[in-house]
Amino acid sequence: MQKIRSGTVAALLLGSILSPFPAAAAPSSSETIREAALQDIVAWDFVEGLTTEVGARPAGTPQEARARDWTVAKLKSLGFANVRAEPYKMPVWLRGRDEARVVAPFPQRLVLAALGNSASTSEKGIEAELAYFPTLAALEAAPDGSLKGKIAFVSHAMSATQDGSSYGYFGATRRQGPSIASKKGAVAILIRSIGTDHHRQAHSGIQMWADGAKPIPAAALSIPDADQLTRIIARGHPVRLQVTLTSRLLKDQPSGNVIAEIPGNDPAAGLVMAACHLDSWDQGTGAIDDASGCGIIAAAAVHAAKAGPLRRTIRILMAGAEEVGGDGGRAYFTAHGAELHALVMESDFGADRVWRVDYKLPAGHEALAARLSAALAPLGIARSHVAAGGGSDIEPLVKAGIPVIDLQQDGTRYFDIHHTPDDTLDKVDRVQLQQNVSAWAVALFETANAQESLGIK
Amino acid sequence: MQKIRSGTVAALLLGSILSPFPAAAAPSSSETIREAALQDIVAWDFVEGLTTEVGARPAGTPQEARARDWTVAKLKSLGFANVRAEPYKMPVWLRGRDEARVVAPFPQRLVLAALGNSASTSEKGIEAELAYFPTLAALEAAPDGSLKGKIAFVSHAMSATQDGSSYGYFGATRRQGPSIASKKGAVAILIRSIGTDHHRQAHSGIQMWADGAKPIPAAALSIPDADQLTRIIARGHPVRLQVTLTSRLLKDQPSGNVIAEIPGNDPAAGLVMAACHLDSWDQGTGAIDDASGCGIIAAAAVHAAKAGPLRRTIRILMAGAEEVGGDGGRAYFTAHGAELHALVMESDFGADRVWRVDYKLPAGHEALAARLSAALAPLGIARSHVAAGGGSDIEPLVKAGIPVIDLQQDGTRYFDIHHTPDDTLDKVDRVQLQQNVSAWAVALFETANAQESLGIK
Repeated sequence: MQKIRSGTVAALLLGSILSPFPAAAAPSSSETIREAALQDIVAWDFVEGLTTEVGARPAGTPQEARARDWTVAKLKSLGFANVRAEPYKMPVWLRGRDEARVVAPFPQRLVLAALGNSASTSEKGIEAELAYFPTLAALEAAPDGSLKGKIAFVSHAMSATQDGSSYGYFGATRRQGPSIASKKGAVAILIRSIGTDHHRQAHSGIQMWADGAKPIPAAALSIPDADQLTRIIARGHPVRLQVTLTSRLLKDQPSGNVIAEIPGNDPAAGLVMAACHLDSWDQGTGAIDDASGCGIIAAAAVHAAKAGPLRRTIRILMAGAEEVGGDGGRAYFTAHGAELHALVMESDFGADRVWRVDYKLPAGHEALAARLSAALAPLGIARSHVAAGGGSDIEPLVKAGIPVIDLQQDGTRYFDIHHTPDDTLDKVDRVQLQQNVSAWAVALFETANAQESLGIK
Repeated sequence: MQKIRSGTVAALLLGSILSPFPAAAAPSSSETIREAALQDIVAWDFVEGLTTEVGARPAGTPQEARARDWTVAKLKSLGFANVRAEPYKMPVWLRGRDEARVVAPFPQRLVLAALGNSASTSEKGIEAELAYFPTLAALEAAPDGSLKGKIAFVSHAMSATQDGSSYGYFGATRRQGPSIASKKGAVAILIRSIGTDHHRQAHSGIQMWADGAKPIPAAALSIPDADQLTRIIARGHPVRLQVTLTSRLLKDQPSGNVIAEIPGNDPAAGLVMAACHLDSWDQGTGAIDDASGCGIIAAAAVHAAKAGPLRRTIRILMAGAEEVGGDGGRAYFTAHGAELHALVMESDFGADRVWRVDYKLPAGHEALAARLSAALAPLGIARSHVAAGGGSDIEPLVKAGIPVIDLQQDGTRYFDIHHTPDDTLDKVDRVQLQQNVSAWAVALFETANAQESLGIK
């Protein structure tokens, strides 16, 4: 039995060095912040710690509660002010056994994962004939009642995109497919995973039952399994499947947000808020989704705080329950929506480098956008003319008209890993993570200190 | 419900075109064969068919029996002569549930797969403290009895090698680790998967209990899980694990080899035999291990047969039960070892390109080696001065002194996939598969027609 070196030493030292943040005598320049943050160790330490010491963090579970405790302690040790968890309650869907096999014509096992809110089969599962649809449109075109007693299988062809836009388009199969299949009489639905990899792991994800759609068992096949099933179907024989997807529903389970601040010196100028989410899907350890986002914003706030006094308070929102519908973001808005939010931003698209910056600012803020874009350019980040849209956790604030800036991350490999067991620490590239921290530190510093009014009337 | 195009048309046409092989009026040159085989469709059709219509083929199971039936029919349709299955019986180990979780200090699930011949836990599993060893040498150095009541965990650091040699070295952890841990009193052993990937899939594989070692539960963690456990151990707290590995042992189950031939016209010149194995591990569909090898040798024999009359008979051995100890290869040697084998070769290292050719030929065969090497060179294959060693299925013949040639495949990514659920059709590159067929067709043609005596006294 041998001891191996501890990875926690850096974290302990960091806490003592950075707390309370030793502010520079005069504000640093964005260039100084940018270069310092490229050497960041706070984000990696956060991601390594949360994924190792907590692991998977499904919304509304004891694991998510452990993540809140861990995060409150970590943010306090980093020197943040006003660190607290803000609880709320929510319904919870819990995965059980996910099993499937081809009964005929070629008996073999398939790898799949139930989708969030899937109905549960019995422990013995169900057996039925398969009805194949190459696209969601083909499923939509099936006559009402034509799927009675059958298992629908919807394939499609998602491919990787740098901006992640293919997820919006192809993700409809996961979001809407189960309700459509149910309304047409299917006893269950399988979809090809919404993903871009070629590994034998299924991509989970939430889906909500449409009004009038009776919940049925719903799952995603791994991409190699979906391809295999498509080849089997191509032989032209009727295909029978046995599917066992057990799950449970619990009411009123505890979840919560974690909030922390770096106080500014002009409360009337409003808050700059940076968001991420603490919960994860259950199969992986949520390293890229979204421990990385939380590590990035925490580290960036630390670097901004070190750089000098801030005009605006930087608030960190590490939301609960993003994956299952955004309960945390809504709870935040209910509690804090009336406070003065000058600007909101979110990091929830992995750990790969920021390649683009998008803005949605009020009229008269062109100089700020130009200033920030110039400060980000040395990081390889290009200004776009696409309007920023934010993320799930800040969606209620964005809808309420708060200005938003998006530091868009490269999504080319994000959907190789997203919502699979493979979402683990080894998928995080330390250098790309540091580039994110650097971009965020600059953005938080520039916007927190901006003399422009932003979202404050 | 829509039909998609059938992939079997080519196979059906092929059978009628190629059977019986329309021999050229005069023997073709190696160049003609090499170029024709680079357009091969037989190997892909074989691999696609076997992995789709049978899937996983664990030794001694009904799936392996279906694979024999499928293969006999396929080889007959390709025009081979003397196609038959040759049965034998063997003991079988069958996987049950593979589950593990960290109980303390950081509760979370781990992904693992039992190793072949692992003892079974009860349905409730076992819980014990972990004893960590970074290397097999560290486990070997532990005092006798020091592991009493503990679960041993052995990590190590396998990295990819083009020639696959790191498997021999690091694979010792899987082959010997369980027996060593058992003899020192461990209640179970976990190893870091013998693999080079970063996916959440465990690499299975066989291990044999040494004399005097009591079977204990033995499993491989996926590499991200082994890394995670190592990080958890690094925190310095005692680590407790719960491990459930259920399995069954069956006696005297049916297995078998499939044999087929392309008859030559000089029986006294002996056989040239090409081998692969039909069985696979249970987690994947055995596309690279070893449907590809079987597809390559079958396709290459077809191309050699088309090229012209052959002096020597080419025999194809598609062995059973390679993965679990080589029962098929031994059964073949018992039945056929006394027949005249001029040369043996095996394809069992995936589907990636051949990069090197190794020889072990009797004295006086330098001209043949030079001729064959020159014919292979345009495929990017370099002659080595390493002695050829063959593979498991021909090991008894090689040990008996039969000459052997190895067409070494690139193993750089082989152990990313080997013995995992990821061993599926999408991992086979069609162009690299064709390069294999081309190299093998040339090698079979040159050796079957060689005027040299090879292994025939």
